[in-house]
Amino acid sequence: MAVVVQEVPRVSAEVIAGLANAGVATVHEAQGRKGMLASYMRPIYSGVRIAGSAVTISAPPGDNWMLHVAIEQLTQGDLLVLAPTSPCDNGYFGDLLATSAMARGCCGLIIDAGVRDIRDLTAMGFPVWSKAISAQGTVKETLGSVNVPIVCAGALIEAGDVIVADDDGVCVVKHAEAAEVLAAADKRLALEEAKRKRLASGELGLDIYAMRPKLAEKGLKYV
Amino acid sequence: MAVVVQEVPRVSAEVIAGLANAGVATVHEAQGRKGMLASYMRPIYSGVRIAGSAVTISAPPGDNWMLHVAIEQLTQGDLLVLAPTSPCDNGYFGDLLATSAMARGCCGLIIDAGVRDIRDLTAMGFPVWSKAISAQGTVKETLGSVNVPIVCAGALIEAGDVIVADDDGVCVVKHAEAAEVLAAADKRLALEEAKRKRLASGELGLDIYAMRPKLAEKGLKYV
Amino acid sequence: MAVVVQEVPRVSAEVIAGLANAGVATVHEAQGRKGMLASYMRPIYSGVRIAGSAVTISAPPGDNWMLHVAIEQLTQGDLLVLAPTSPCDNGYFGDLLATSAMARGCCGLIIDAGVRDIRDLTAMGFPVWSKAISAQGTVKETLGSVNVPIVCAGALIEAGDVIVADDDGVCVVKHAEAAEVLAAADKRLALEEAKRKRLASGELGLDIYAMRPKLAEKGLKYV
Amino acid sequence: MAVVVQEVPRVSAEVIAGLANAGVATVHEAQGRKGMLASYMRPIYSGVRIAGSAVTISAPPGDNWMLHVAIEQLTQGDLLVLAPTSPCDNGYFGDLLATSAMARGCCGLIIDAGVRDIRDLTAMGFPVWSKAISAQGTVKETLGSVNVPIVCAGALIEAGDVIVADDDGVCVVKHAEAAEVLAAADKRLALEEAKRKRLASGELGLDIYAMRPKLAEKGLKYV
Amino acid sequence: MAVVVQEVPRVSAEVIAGLANAGVATVHEAQGRKGMLASYMRPIYSGVRIAGSAVTISAPPGDNWMLHVAIEQLTQGDLLVLAPTSPCDNGYFGDLLATSAMARGCCGLIIDAGVRDIRDLTAMGFPVWSKAISAQGTVKETLGSVNVPIVCAGALIEAGDVIVADDDGVCVVKHAEAAEVLAAADKRLALEEAKRKRLASGELGLDIYAMRPKLAEKGLKYV
Amino acid sequence: MAVVVQEVPRVSAEVIAGLANAGVATVHEAQGRKGMLASYMRPIYSGVRIAGSAVTISAPPGDNWMLHVAIEQLTQGDLLVLAPTSPCDNGYFGDLLATSAMARGCCGLIIDAGVRDIRDLTAMGFPVWSKAISAQGTVKETLGSVNVPIVCAGALIEAGDVIVADDDGVCVVKHAEAAEVLAAADKRLALEEAKRKRLASGELGLDIYAMRPKLAEKGLKYV
Repeated sequence: MAVVVQEVPRVSAEVIAGLANAGVATVHEAQGRKGMLASYMRPIYSGVRIAGSAVTISAPPGDNWMLHVAIEQLTQGDLLVLAPTSPCDNGYFGDLLATSAMARGCCGLIIDAGVRDIRDLTAMGFPVWSKAISAQGTVKETLGSVNVPIVCAGALIEAGDVIVADDDGVCVVKHAEAAEVLAAADKRLALEEAKRKRLASGELGLDIYAMRPKLAEKGLKYV
Repeated sequence: MAVVVQEVPRVSAEVIAGLANAGVATVHEAQGRKGMLASYMRPIYSGVRIAGSAVTISAPPGDNWMLHVAIEQLTQGDLLVLAPTSPCDNGYFGDLLATSAMARGCCGLIIDAGVRDIRDLTAMGFPVWSKAISAQGTVKETLGSVNVPIVCAGALIEAGDVIVADDDGVCVVKHAEAAEVLAAADKRLALEEAKRKRLASGELGLDIYAMRPKLAEKGLKYV
Repeated sequence: MAVVVQEVPRVSAEVIAGLANAGVATVHEAQGRKGMLASYMRPIYSGVRIAGSAVTISAPPGDNWMLHVAIEQLTQGDLLVLAPTSPCDNGYFGDLLATSAMARGCCGLIIDAGVRDIRDLTAMGFPVWSKAISAQGTVKETLGSVNVPIVCAGALIEAGDVIVADDDGVCVVKHAEAAEVLAAADKRLALEEAKRKRLASGELGLDIYAMRPKLAEKGLKYV
Repeated sequence: MAVVVQEVPRVSAEVIAGLANAGVATVHEAQGRKGMLASYMRPIYSGVRIAGSAVTISAPPGDNWMLHVAIEQLTQGDLLVLAPTSPCDNGYFGDLLATSAMARGCCGLIIDAGVRDIRDLTAMGFPVWSKAISAQGTVKETLGSVNVPIVCAGALIEAGDVIVADDDGVCVVKHAEAAEVLAAADKRLALEEAKRKRLASGELGLDIYAMRPKLAEKGLKYV
Repeated sequence: MAVVVQEVPRVSAEVIAGLANAGVATVHEAQGRKGMLASYMRPIYSGVRIAGSAVTISAPPGDNWMLHVAIEQLTQGDLLVLAPTSPCDNGYFGDLLATSAMARGCCGLIIDAGVRDIRDLTAMGFPVWSKAISAQGTVKETLGSVNVPIVCAGALIEAGDVIVADDDGVCVVKHAEAAEVLAAADKRLALEEAKRKRLASGELGLDIYAMRPKLAEKGLKYV
Repeated sequence: MAVVVQEVPRVSAEVIAGLANAGVATVHEAQGRKGMLASYMRPIYSGVRIAGSAVTISAPPGDNWMLHVAIEQLTQGDLLVLAPTSPCDNGYFGDLLATSAMARGCCGLIIDAGVRDIRDLTAMGFPVWSKAISAQGTVKETLGSVNVPIVCAGALIEAGDVIVADDDGVCVVKHAEAAEVLAAADKRLALEEAKRKRLASGELGLDIYAMRPKLAEKGLKYV
C-alpha cells in the first residue's frame, strides 16, 4: 500500500513559467473554472506567485516521515504537495525540511495541514500555502506514499500536475492540459488588458458586455 | 423580485469623513455597541481606515452579475456591499471590476463571500473586507437586487447607510443616525485622550473608573 | 468563587529570555511536544517573538471587567492570558487597556477571544495573539478570577507559567519545568545548526537520520 | 437603548396554521426563495412542524435576563425568537423558562445560541431550533430589547413576522406578506401533487419540465 | 466541458450487497483504511446501511439542474453522488426528486451540500447523507456534468465505484477493487467475531494482541 | 513521558449515582457554572443520563493504542475520557473496544475525537459523547498516557474526577468537590420543583424573582 513512484512526467519549464506568470485566477478561468483548492489554503507570507511540478505525498495524521522520502524525489522546479489521510493541523514542515527541499531544487510547499518556523521560512524565501500554522510536532512511525494521486484541499492532484499559487490561493492544472491552458491563459491576459482600459475610462461592463437586453429579458426592474 | 433602486439617500461627505476618522471601534461604541459585522470579515491588506455610503447588492451564490448592475449606481464616495443569498466563498470580484468601480468613484468593497486578484487590488489601493479570498469563478445567469436592504455578515444594511471599515472590521451606521453618532464619537475620542494619558502614567483603571467598591460589593476576594 | 490570587511564583528573567530566544517550535519540542495552544491563536502582526510570565484571567463571555483587575497584578515582564468561560469573539481589549498594561510592565496579551484597536496596538508595539479580531464591545457586570488555573485555547495555564509566543503560535511552559526546558531547547538549537548545514549541502534526511532500513522494514516500496 | 415594544401586529391564526401546514421548504419557495435562517439552526428533536408569531429578543452574550421580560409579552400562538448581540453558544433557555413560556401560550423557541434541558423539553413537547445545545449557564446583568427588529441566524426578523419551522430548518415570512405567501404556498402544494404522481410513474423531470432543448442549447453533450 | 457519460461499469449486485452487509467501518479497514468521505457527511435519519453503484454529478453552487439529467442515467441499485464545484449548503434535493429517483431504481443520495424535505424523505424511506440540511432553494441555469470523476467530501469518486453508507458515514470502494475488498471484509468479519467473544469474557486486548512487550520496548511506564 | 498511573482515587458510587440523577445542567449550576466541556461534544444516541469516575487517556492524533492500555485500568462504574494531543476526528473506538470496556465495568466514553460502529454501540447500550462520528481507522504506533491530567474539549479532567453526561452535554466535577456539589445539586432540584409549579400556573419569573425594580433601575423602557 505504501509506495514511492519514482518516474514522474514533468511539464516543460517554459510552460510552468508561463502559468506562474498568468497567476491563479487567470489560469483557473482559462481551464474552465476548475482546479481550485479550498479557499482555506493561505500563503504564510504574501506577494509570491509561483508554479511548479507536483511531487505528491499522502501522509498519516501527525506523521511527517514521508516528507523525508519525498525530498529525495525532487528535481529542480518541483513543488511538494501533502495531503493527510484525515484532517490534521499539526506542523509537518519547518525550516530544516525547507533547507533540505531547497537544496534539492524545490520551490515551495502546498500542505493541507500545518506548517511551522514561519519566521525562518519567510527569511529563507520558501513559500508555503497551508491550512494552518502550528508548531505542534509530528512523529515518524507510519508509512504513507509519494507520487500517488491525492485529494488535497478538495482537489485531485497527481504527480507531475502543475500547481500555480499566489495570494489568491492554489490551482492545479492537469499535466496533459498544461500547454493548452497556458495558451488560453495568455489569450485571456491580452483580452483583459483591453477591457481594463475601457473600464478605467468609465465605460460600464453593462455596455461592454452588452448585458442590458439580457437583464431586461430576465425581468430586472429599475425603480 | 429583482429590482434596482436608483434613488439612494446619502449622508454628507463631511459626516462620512468624520466617521472614517473615528474608526470602527469608536463608532461602534458611540452608537451603543451595535452595527458590527461578523468578525470573520477581514481586510485583504492592513492599514486602511475608510467610510462610505453603502450601495447594497443581494446576489445568488456563485453569480456576480449584479455587481455590473450595481457599479452603474455608484457615485463618488460610495462603497459596494454584497451579501449572497446563501453562504458562498466564490471570488465574485477582482481587478477588472475594481477598475470599473474606481472609475465610478467607489472607495471599497464589503463582501460576505470571496474576492480575488488580491495582488492587483493591493497595488491599485482598492480595499476589500471579505469572508474569504478565492479565485473560484462565478457565472452571470441569475438576477439579484441592488440597493435593497440586505443582511451582510449578520448586520442589516440599507442603501445609504454609512459603512466604516478598518483593521478592526466593519461597522454600519444607519443613515438617519450618522450625524449624531459622529458627534458622540468625537466626544468619545476627546475623553479617551485624557484617559490615555492617565493610564500611560501608571494610574489604574480600577481607580480612574472607581471600580473597587463595586467589585467588593459583588464579592471579589483578594487572596 | 471570584478570586484574585496576588502571590505568583515567577521564573527568572534570564530563563524567560532564553525561552523567547529559542522560540515556540523549539521550546515545544524541547519539552516533549506538549504545551501548544490551539492553532487558531494568531498574532495581530507578525515578526514578534516574546516570552513572559503568565498573569491569568478567567472572564465571562462579553465582559472585560477582570482585565482592569488583572492589570494591577502585573509586574515587569508579565504577559496577560485571558480565557472566557464560554466561547466568545468580542473585543475585550484595545489601546487604552494596552496603554495601562504597558505602563505596568506587561509585554503582551494572549486571549482566547477577540481584540480591537489593531492599528493602535501595532503602532504601540504591543503584541497580541488572539482567536479573533473584533471591535464588538464588552460590559463590566460580572466577576471572574485572576491568577487561577485556566484552560486557554485548549491548554492548561497557571499563573507564573512561562508563555512563549511567535509567528508559529503560543506555547506554555510549566513554571517548575522552565529551567530544564531551556537547557533542552538550547541543546536542540545547537544540534539543529549542524543538521541545517548538512541538509543545505544536499545531504538527505533519509541518510542523516538513517531512515532507509526502518522504511524498508515497514514495507515501503519504490516503484 | 433597551426597550420593550408592547404592541405587536399579529397575523391571523388561520394564516399561521396554513403556513405551518405548508412547511418550511414550500413557504420558502412560495415567497421567492427568501427568508431562510442559516442551516446551522437545528431542531432539538425531529418530526415537528409549527408556525407562530414572532416575539423577538435581542440579548447580550451569556445573559438571558430578557427572556423573562419577553415571556410577559407572549400571547397564545407566539414563538420566541432570540438573537445574541454577538456569537454565543451558552444555554440561555431550559425547562423552567419553557414551563413559563408554555403557560403563556408560547409554541416554541428559535435561538441563535444554545439551549439546555433537552430531555425535559422533549418530554414537555416544547420544540426549539437552536445553534447549539449547551448546559453552560448565563447571568442576568445586562439589558437587551424585546420586540425590536433583530438579525437572527442571518435573517431579519421583526416582531409579528411569522416563523415557520420544521425538520428542514426555519423560515421567516414578513407580517405584511403572510396572506399572499400562504396563497402561493397552497397553490404550490397542489401543483406538486400532480408532479409527484407523474414522477412516481417514472416520467422524467427532463420531460415534464421540457428541459432537453435548453440543455442542448447551453451545450450539454451526451457521450 | 459539460458532459453526460452514459456508459458506466457496474459491480455485480452480489458484491454490492456483500459490501452493504459488511458496513462502512469494516469495508474501510478491509481496503487498507482508505476511501472515507469527510466526517461531516451525516445521514438524515439513522439506522440505514446501504451500498450502491455511484452515478456522479458535478454541479455549480446553488444550481440543481444536473440532478434531473442524472436521474435519467440511473439503473436499479444506483446511488446518486453530488459534489458542488464550490462549497454550498443549499437544498439541492427534496421529495419530488426523490420520488423521481426512486422510480428509476435509486437507493439513496450522497451530497456534499444541502438536502430538504427531511420529513418526506424519511417517510418515503429514501436515505441521504449530506453536509447540511437546508430548505434554501436552487436555480436551473448552469450546466454541470454527470458520471465524470468528482471529489466529494474529500474523496475521489468515479461513476461505477461502490458507495457504502451507514451511521458511521460514507466510504467509496473503487470499481476494480470491489470484489477483493468484499473478500477481505468478510474475512475481517469472521475474525472479529472470535475476538469479540474473548473480549466479552474479560480478556484484554493487551494480551490477545500481545501488546505488552512492544509497549514496554517503546518505554511505557506504569507508576 | 508516557506513563500509566494505576492508583486513582474514586468517589463513592452513591455520590456518583446522585450526580447522574441531577443531570448535567443542574450539576453545572450547582458547582458555580463551571466544568462544561465544549458544546460540540454530542451523544451518539439520545436519552441517556450517566455519571462515572474518569479514567483519562492522552493519545496522539490517529493512534488508539492507549485505549487498550486504559481498559486494563478500568473498575466497575468508570468512564473512559480521551483527548488527542492535537485535533483529530478519526474513529478511535468501536464495538470491539466497547465490548472489552463493558466487560471491565465501563459505563461509557467521552472522546474529543471520533467514534465508529454507531449501530453496534447503540444496540449494545454503550453511550459515547464525541466530537465526531467517523469510521476513519487509527494506528497503534505511538505511546500516550493513562490517568494523567488532560484537557478534553476545553475542560481540565483528572483521573477520578466525576463525569456527568446527558443530552445537554458533558460536565466534569472535581473529585474533591463531588460530595458538596451533590448536596448543592439536590438542594437546587428541590427549589426548582417549587418554581416550576408557580411558573406552570402562569406566574411570571419577573415577579417570582422580583426583577422589575432592577430592570427599571438599569433603564429598561416599555414603549
